[in-house]
Amino acid sequence: MSEQDEKFMRRAIELAKKGIDHGAGGPFGAVVVKNGEIIAEGWNEVTSKNDPTAHAEVSAIRKACAALKDFQLRGCTIYTSCEPCPMCLGAIYWARPEKMFYACTREDAAGIGFDDQFIYDEIGRDLEERRIETINLLRIEGLGVFKMWESMPQKIEY
Amino acid sequence: MSEQDEKFMRRAIELAKKGIDHGAGGPFGAVVVKNGEIIAEGWNEVTSKNDPTAHAEVSAIRKACAALKDFQLRGCTIYTSCEPCPMCLGAIYWARPEKMFYACTREDAAGIGFDDQFIYDEIGRDLEERRIETINLLRIEGLGVFKMWESMPQKIEY
Repeated sequence: MSEQDEKFMRRAIELAKKGIDHGAGGPFGAVVVKNGEIIAEGWNEVTSKNDPTAHAEVSAIRKACAALKDFQLRGCTIYTSCEPCPMCLGAIYWARPEKMFYACTREDAAGIGFDDQFIYDEIGRDLEERRIETINLLRIEGLGVFKMWESMPQKIEY
Repeated sequence: MSEQDEKFMRRAIELAKKGIDHGAGGPFGAVVVKNGEIIAEGWNEVTSKNDPTAHAEVSAIRKACAALKDFQLRGCTIYTSCEPCPMCLGAIYWARPEKMFYACTREDAAGIGFDDQFIYDEIGRDLEERRIETINLLRIEGLGVFKMWESMPQKIEY
């Protein structure tokens, strides 16, 4: 941890504040840093953009990848004003940055009405025990496309 | 399960095939249905759009919410050609559809090189044991913005 890290986290927190000041969505901000510079900023815009995926981290990751013209965040660090929800954590793992800093915890988020823990719990459950009814259908037909993918010589893996 | 459900799942599988035929990304497709009609379609575009969040389900959810002008998918059903990864499952829980159908399983996805299970495992781990280094920083400053949010009378909760 360095002064630089604190500076970037303060920017993430500032974006969280800016977001709620402008009615964008919940109180969350994030920045992506590469080589000591901010390459993308995000804040929660769920309610203003009618996009349940427009969390600060997802938005920052999408912008950072667009800036780098890459689908990975190699050598990058993410600073987020709150511990990521499972969706954002999944996005972070797909983007593969090197490191993550967070300020508030998931318990802090629950304390102001954002129940990430419910989703963390559901993800750990067997499919047939989940609150959103989850049904398997046409697996064999689906597998046909997987087999086509496997046999494609020109596929780009990620 | 009905013939209707099979029809919608076949469309999701068809989108998965269309996606790989066009070099959009991995072999995954999804549709969102409301009142017996498809309101949005998505397919994986990670590598073609340089967007690690452009999975079939996330894309379909974003489009469906845009079509409904809502940040929730009340009364909707999602059909996806493969069991969602944690990112997409998180997105589904935030969007709150009524039901989800899936064709291939996460094990099928692992079999063709998409290791969702690694992310499922990481999400269940304590923060300090994760593969992407995860560090707490400036929590008290972050909490300041949470308190501002709490005291806002005009906030839109989700």
